[in-house]
Amino acid sequence: MQDPKDISLSPDSPLCPQGSVCFVGAGPGDPDLLTRKAERALRQARVILHDRLVTPGILALASPQARLINVGKSGFGPSTPQAEINARLIEEAGKGPGVIRLKGGDSALFSRLDEEIEACAKAGLGWTVIPGITAASAAVASIGQSLTTRGRNTAITLLSAHDIAGFAEQDWAALARPGAVAAIYMGKRAARFLSGRLLMHGADPDTPVSIAARVSRPDARTVATTLARLPADLDAARLNGPAVLILGLSPRAARTVQIPSQQLEYA
Amino acid sequence: MQDPKDISLSPDSPLCPQGSVCFVGAGPGDPDLLTRKAERALRQARVILHDRLVTPGILALASPQARLINVGKSGFGPSTPQAEINARLIEEAGKGPGVIRLKGGDSALFSRLDEEIEACAKAGLGWTVIPGITAASAAVASIGQSLTTRGRNTAITLLSAHDIAGFAEQDWAALARPGAVAAIYMGKRAARFLSGRLLMHGADPDTPVSIAARVSRPDARTVATTLARLPADLDAARLNGPAVLILGLSPRAARTVQIPSQQLEYA
Repeated sequence: MQDPKDISLSPDSPLCPQGSVCFVGAGPGDPDLLTRKAERALRQARVILHDRLVTPGILALASPQARLINVGKSGFGPSTPQAEINARLIEEAGKGPGVIRLKGGDSALFSRLDEEIEACAKAGLGWTVIPGITAASAAVASIGQSLTTRGRNTAITLLSAHDIAGFAEQDWAALARPGAVAAIYMGKRAARFLSGRLLMHGADPDTPVSIAARVSRPDARTVATTLARLPADLDAARLNGPAVLILGLSPRAARTVQIPSQQLEYA
Repeated sequence: MQDPKDISLSPDSPLCPQGSVCFVGAGPGDPDLLTRKAERALRQARVILHDRLVTPGILALASPQARLINVGKSGFGPSTPQAEINARLIEEAGKGPGVIRLKGGDSALFSRLDEEIEACAKAGLGWTVIPGITAASAAVASIGQSLTTRGRNTAITLLSAHDIAGFAEQDWAALARPGAVAAIYMGKRAARFLSGRLLMHGADPDTPVSIAARVSRPDARTVATTLARLPADLDAARLNGPAVLILGLSPRAARTVQIPSQQLEYA
């Protein structure tokens, strides 16, 4: 007998049928960090409502027939009102299949996935969520570090420096402890606030911080700093585009591997 | 002038050249949740040292010439000693290109990525890390929930229920607060401990918990329960395979979308 609390969603359902919206995580920017499933959804797409931060290389994977609609918010700049995005999703999903809501990173983190799914559900629409690589994963991959390590930390925090009301308060005492690791999203403008709060709660001023800007993109930059120097080093670096701060980890020194170009493809 | 603290790793480097090891996140199990980059690495592979939990469908994407070596640990069962895995990686990377260390999920979370990269670095080898979809992302995608929501939580915790010494202590007071969301990895055997600690720290017994077992696989099961009922419901459900517990979120009711089968492919 099937337990009534046991909810099994079919894994065989088509990606984005009519009457539903497919929420797709685009990952941090490198088209190669899309999942195979997200790529398939893009190739099947009829309409794609995408964030501003989704890169041209990713949009280029969409069917040439797909209509691309930029509904992105630009930091503190102009944006499409959430109600308008919801209305567009509902309108398009009623017209036919292949309606994709494409969000940077993983759509379950610091996007407004809940609000958009709720609007769809209220309108009687179905939904599918295809997860994406979040910036924290790509950032630590690029610096060769692990978010968790036996004996150092068995937990990590992913947090946003901003909330509706401004800078977001956090459990600073826990984040200030030695060995704590956290990925801070949208942290560039909040760097002085973050550094101040953590130092006030007893964090070591020499705690390493890695700033990963435009992670996974051809123009990615990583700046290694410390908690005390974070605000000044961030100012000095003049980084453009999205950045994630990795509190507690510094980039691992990389050994450059030199190989002849004919070895680049060896499958 | 290049800032000495500014470390830019080339995005154009080949995936797994000779003299290096390529650490690849396999994601939660569905081959479609591999990244395009991970898929490419598998197709180029000469040797793949993989965890036990990596699914056959993912291994099937490897080049037919690739040698597959299972170095997996089976819960509390027998395992390949870490020193032996490190030695195999170093030996294979010296012989030729295409050496892949394939780990379930994202290799930066609750694997021993640090230990393996350090062994490679000590041996003078290079390394590349290709991030993967972690179980928490796939779990919340399957239940249609967001890990963060404006006004509810601006931070989430990913934690392991186990550490070297046994069950892992956490910042229970923070996790027990209303609105807290956490993904608990390897939580099946620790459910009674987790539930007890959180209730002791004042968590609401009715806090929702979603148990996502074998997430993204054809035999995935999701059990909706509460913090107080977690140990009993987990026992009763007799779930096989890996599971992640999502504290603070319950599955969203899904509207089943019925469509004719000829609409399944509409690209």
